This record gives sequence, C-alpha cells and structure tokens, in this order.
Amino acid sequence: MMVKKLKVGVAGLGTVGLQTVCQLLKNREQIIQKAGVELALTAVADPQIDSDRKAMLDNQSCYSDAADMVEQEELDLLVELIGGVDPAGKIIHQALNRGIDVVTANKELLAKQGSSFFELSRKGEGRLRFEAAVGGSIPIIRTIREALVGVELDSIYGIINGTTNYILSCMADRGLEFDKALQEARHKGFAEADPTADVEGFDSAHKMTILAELAFGINISPDAVYTEGIKGITPMILEDARQLGYSIKLLGIAKKFNHRVDVRVHPTLIPQKSALAAVTGEYNAVYLKGSQLGSSMLYGKGAGGPSTATAVISDLVSLAAQKTNSTPAVYYSWEKTRLLPTEQLVSCYYLRLSAVDRPGVLARVTEILGRHHISIETVIQRGRSADRLVPVVLTTHEAREGAMQAALEEISQLEDIGQTPKFVRIEEGFEQE
Amino acid sequence: MMVKKLKVGVAGLGTVGLQTVCQLLKNREQIIQKAGVELALTAVADPQIDSDRKAMLDNQSCYSDAADMVEQEELDLLVELIGGVDPAGKIIHQALNRGIDVVTANKELLAKQGSSFFELSRKGEGRLRFEAAVGGSIPIIRTIREALVGVELDSIYGIINGTTNYILSCMADRGLEFDKALQEARHKGFAEADPTADVEGFDSAHKMTILAELAFGINISPDAVYTEGIKGITPMILEDARQLGYSIKLLGIAKKFNHRVDVRVHPTLIPQKSALAAVTGEYNAVYLKGSQLGSSMLYGKGAGGPSTATAVISDLVSLAAQKTNSTPAVYYSWEKTRLLPTEQLVSCYYLRLSAVDRPGVLARVTEILGRHHISIETVIQRGRSADRLVPVVLTTHEAREGAMQAALEEISQLEDIGQTPKFVRIEEGFEQE
Repeated sequence: MMVKKLKVGVAGLGTVGLQTVCQLLKNREQIIQKAGVELALTAVADPQIDSDRKAMLDNQSCYSDAADMVEQEELDLLVELIGGVDPAGKIIHQALNRGIDVVTANKELLAKQGSSFFELSRKGEGRLRFEAAVGGSIPIIRTIREALVGVELDSIYGIINGTTNYILSCMADRGLEFDKALQEARHKGFAEADPTADVEGFDSAHKMTILAELAFGINISPDAVYTEGIKGITPMILEDARQLGYSIKLLGIAKKFNHRVDVRVHPTLIPQKSALAAVTGEYNAVYLKGSQLGSSMLYGKGAGGPSTATAVISDLVSLAAQKTNSTPAVYYSWEKTRLLPTEQLVSCYYLRLSAVDRPGVLARVTEILGRHHISIETVIQRGRSADRLVPVVLTTHEAREGAMQAALEEISQLEDIGQTPKFVRIEEGFEQE
Repeated sequence: MMVKKLKVGVAGLGTVGLQTVCQLLKNREQIIQKAGVELALTAVADPQIDSDRKAMLDNQSCYSDAADMVEQEELDLLVELIGGVDPAGKIIHQALNRGIDVVTANKELLAKQGSSFFELSRKGEGRLRFEAAVGGSIPIIRTIREALVGVELDSIYGIINGTTNYILSCMADRGLEFDKALQEARHKGFAEADPTADVEGFDSAHKMTILAELAFGINISPDAVYTEGIKGITPMILEDARQLGYSIKLLGIAKKFNHRVDVRVHPTLIPQKSALAAVTGEYNAVYLKGSQLGSSMLYGKGAGGPSTATAVISDLVSLAAQKTNSTPAVYYSWEKTRLLPTEQLVSCYYLRLSAVDRPGVLARVTEILGRHHISIETVIQRGRSADRLVPVVLTTHEAREGAMQAALEEISQLEDIGQTPKFVRIEEGFEQE
C-alpha cells in the first residue's frame, strides 16, 4: 500500500518538544501501521539547540527561529511547543494563514487569545488541535468536542494541575507543611523552578477557560475567572476537612445554568468518598455531568513529557488522517502475535474448600498444590468440628491456569473434601489509590 | 454560513434506535451549531413500526426492511441498531459497498465478523464507526484508536457490562443472593428479560474482543476468549473477598507480552482500594496501562438508551465532519450566555476562626452570618480556655459569595476574634461511590 507522507515541523525543544521528537522518530513504523500515513519529522526550531538535542535528530533541518522554519520548509503540520503568548501566537497565525495544520499544547495562549485562532482555523485552510493543552494523556478535549457533541453538559470539575495535586496529597497524607511539600514536588520533578503559575492556580484557570469555552460554546477571558491558589491551605485545615468527611483539592469548576456560566478555580472541600477525592499525587482527572450523560470521569497522568507528547502525536495523526482522507487500520500488528491458550494463563487464585476437620487434610491439599508448583499466600480455616465439613479459604501466588485446574481436579477427589472447590482469579496489577 | 446537509437513515428502532432518533430530532440545531453540518434524519427501518414510534417521527420515510431503505434512499450515513449477526451484517455490507458511512453499536457482530467490515471499510468508500459498541458514554474506542495512537498499551481492564456490575454490587453491599439481585436489576431496567448474554459473560467477551483487537492490532475470535459468568459467585465468596481486602468484579482482561495476547472475562478479585473497585452499580469503566501512559481510566454510564445514543451521535458527527471537511465551531452558543460575577457565585463554605472563649462570641458570629442569610450546618469548637484563643470550625449551607465576603469582613472586625478567619469552599455535587 502506498503510504502518504506528511512533513512535520516542531517549534520549541523543551521537555515536551524533545519527547515529541523522540516519539515521532521511535514510533514511526507503528504510526504508519496504525494510521496509514507517515508523519515525517522534517525540521525543528529552537533558539538554543545544543549538541545533546542535535544528537537525537537524524537529518532534520534546525532553525533558531520558528518563523523561518514555517517560511522556508513546506510543512504540512506544525507542532507549537514554545509556550507563552509571544512569539508562539505569531507563529501559529503565520502557519494557519499559510494553510498549515497546527498542533499546540499552549494553554496560556489558547485561554488568552484562543478566539482569534479558532476563527482563523474555521475560515482558512489550516486546522488547529490542542488536546495536549489540558490533562496530558486524558483525551478531554476530544471527549468534549467530539464524543459528547450531542450532549448538553451541565458541569465540569477538574483536577488539572499535577503539581498542586501532588503537593496537597503530600500535605494531607503526611502532614507536611506547604513549603516542605513544594520542595519534595520539585525534587521529584513535579514542580518547576518557578512554580507560581501552578501554585497560584493560573495554570488551572487557563485550562478551565479552555474547557468551559468548548463545553458551553462561549468566549471567556481567563482574567474573569475567579482564581485562588493553594498557599492558604495548611495541614490543620486539611485535618479539619478530613474530620468533617472531606478531602481538599485545587478544583476547576465550570457550571452552566440559566444562561449564566460559573467558572472558577480554588481549593475545594469535596466528599472523601467521591471519585475525584481518590485522584491523588501527580494524577489529573476531569469529572463531567450532564442530564443525558449522568456522571462520567476521565483519569490519568497529567502534563509531563511523555503523556503530553502522546497527546500531541494523537492530534498529529488525526489531522494527518483528515488531510489524507485515510482510515486507520484495525489489524496493524506486523508481529506474530497470538492469543494465549487458556491453560497458559497466569493468575493468583482465591480458593474455597469444604473439608472434614481431621489432621492431615490441609496437609494433603497443600501437598497437591505444591506438587503443581502453586504456592499459598494465605490460609484461613473457619470454625472447628470433628464431624462436620468446615470451610477453608486459601489465596495463592501466581500460578498457571493449567496447573491450577489439575490441582483442583485432584483436590476434589480427596475423600475428606466436600463439594467441588470454588475458585476465583485475583488481579493485583492496579495502581492503589 | 451555508451548512451542508447529510441524509441519515436509522435501521432498528429498539431502545437505542428510538433514543437516537429522539436525540437527532431534538438536538438538530445544537448539532448544526457545534459541528457545522446538518444531520437530517431521512428514513427509518424496523419490521414493526407501531403508532407510538410513528408519532415520534416528522416526515421520515418508514421501511419494514432495512435493505430496502439502503437501496432506495440516497443515504449519506446509515445507523445500524438492529443487533445480532443476521440480517445486520448484510445491511452493513450493503451500505459500505454503496459508499455509505455506517455507525453501529453491534458488538456481537463486530466481535464475530469485524474483520470483513474493517477490510471493506478500508478498501471502499464507506467508513465504519462503532463507539457505541463498548462502554456507552465512555469514549473508549476513540481513545484507543485516536488518542493513544502513539502509545503501546500493555493491558486493558474493563468493567463493561452494567447488568452484572449492578448485580454484583447488590450482592456485595446488601448480601443478596444472585437470583434476588438479578430480579432487582430487571425491576430497575438494568437487566433484559433474557439476561443470558450478560450474566454468562458473553456480552463482556464480545466487547473485550473488540478492545483487544483495536489495542493490539490483531484479529481475535470471541470463541477463543476464555469466558466465565457470575452465576458461581455467592454472598459468601463476596464476604471472603471483602475480609481479604478485595472486591469482586466481572472483569474483562487483555494483556500483551512477548508476542502473546491474553484475553479473558471472568469474575475477579481486585484490591478494594483500586480505582476499578469503586466502580459500582450500572456504571462501566475501562482501565488502561502502558509504559508511556502510566495508568489511565475512563468511567461513565454503560449501555442504555441515552448514553449509547450519545455515542452513536458522536460517530455520526465525526463521519459527517470528515465527509464535508468541516471544522467544529468553538463558539457555538447562540444564547446570551455570560460569566457569573464572582460575588454571585453560590457555594457551601468551611470556616475556621480563632475566638476568645467568652460567652457571646459564637452568638455574635452566628448573628452576623444569619443577617447575611448564611445558615450554619455544623459547628465544632475545639478546647476551652478563658484566656487564649480557641479554634472554631464551621460549615455552612449554600450561600452567595458576596454575602460570605461581607460577613467575613464583619466577623474579622469583632474584638474577640484573632487573625483573619480562614475559609474554603465546599462542593457536594458528586455521585458518591
């Protein structure tokens, strides 16, 4: 099959820019297979391209000025990751005017000047995508614009700043003061050298402005959004909240009622048992409510190199598919991937037996399991009786399904075991919250 | 602006079909505003269109045979909601062959014969979308195909059958036996008259087949997917699980490792503290893991009239946008929607004061709040001391921000109050889990 090739330029080689370049080069084949179109990285632009950054590139042209790149390269797609209002805004205008599709992660620019870009993109040739601007790997822009296009949303609640969520989690869980928690966030790479935009809530306000604009279809100035950061929150307040049954989150809130839209960002007490309260550490989540929708939540890693770059790539692929009118492949795997036969599945197990409470019964059961290489994690024997069957509950470490089935077969043949043993598989591979 | 008009035909007027017709007619204007394209419902087909159903329609043509509709109407888009393998499969083939784009919610058909449609759709003119096939209002298909196109997924865990999740929740929370819980699910409209496909896990197996195919790019037969339903689960097993720190869910699991894919559906013990364990009742959720992605979760209402129809509409809009090459509007609101001024925000409040513990101080505070129409929900006074300041923690019912600010101003002027009172807003509007 002939694969169409589109030229991509990346402006801004900070953390996200580098990750985007990395993923474009590394996943080149995978993207061709999945999307049926080639995203060819043609040029990059950054005022300071050092030798480390150059070493990552193949033969891409390097520009110190992004405007020159847009002028001279015949790009199909531009990725704007310069950040800030100027010169990023000019570069995007320039590209859209030339009919180049643009992907950006620039939430500040979109919140402040989105309207001019949206208009330009609607009138002109160039399209604009910005999934990476809010929520990192959470596809919230796509969900509001496309997935819920037929739904009237009533309200949006977002934990959309990983830095502050990490800080508040540290303060709540371990009683740290704000300064200590900020220090730790910096240490772990969850806070920037200048954390003002995060800590004061401006970053969240920019993101909520974008979400509210998309959800309610109106133009909002981020300056009009009430914004309060987390500096006033103390371990004492968090403890009060806990005792009252609440957690405290830096929450973005956007609600619509009676032709009025209420948009704000501030620390908020939310019920401990709500799904949002379980969103801790550097994770982000957006909770949506609508009359036809019920409640819905998207949860995942927030901004940061790899997850933001993932969102950039998804926008690139979607623009590329639209440009080339290609349909993504469903069966794209070029490896010899096959389904695992049932007997080779590996799992932990819960097991419930009824056994006569006689010496040696449990020993025989464990001997059978051991012979099949199944090791026991816990055993709970309930009640004692010399005559009656008593329940024995076991959990095992990981074992093969085939071995487990064979062991169960043997165990159910034992004369002191009543009924067929019951078993249920256990999965442990989840992030605990 | 000239809005392009596309002709839509709906085959199958069951619950989801009717809801789709309803939403298409009711949200006509909203879709035009948001998507920049008109979805004109032109014809419907169902062997039994009774007078109630006819009454919902405007002037749409009615067919008893969907094949006739596809043959005779010059449709741009076909919605297939007949369900089952036959004749739905033939209708979809017929439409795709004629270059008509197709939206379907038919998970059984896609799981069993998806490969033939995917190939046809890739070769021919007609495109195929099926967001509604898995997870109702959760945009999981879109997320795996588009949002995570640059990401290698390692594993997918899904609670993707609302009926069984509702039943297991009843059994776990209230100790109901399976039969009683099923009866209640039927009563509440969460289980069909014949619940076999749900209870035995076949529905989940069809959905996991589709998700695993998309995520791992291989063709999988649903017959090869190990499938076990929830009939073997008893309140006793659920209680054992609880004591061991687990919940039990009917979980779809798809994992990839070493060119092998492990896909299965069975009741599974998962840690009580995992995000998936908090997904109760008729809700669905899909949990994704990948090395670049970390963990990510989408949560929302599962299959059912309105949420499935919402997914159908989103597919229609996305196909229509691609067909007409239109870009969705960002500012589409034609109402005079305005941002609410800060002082008119309404919220509940947490309030912490330091007060001299003298008779009458609290009375003066509550008098001020009352005068500003702010009513108190709880008061906690900590410690007693005639000389020192002691903390007083209050929560209020809903009040206007302006009133609260004015009251705080007055309270901080009181001579027996130390420091500025601290306050944090409270949000209660979440589904509790």
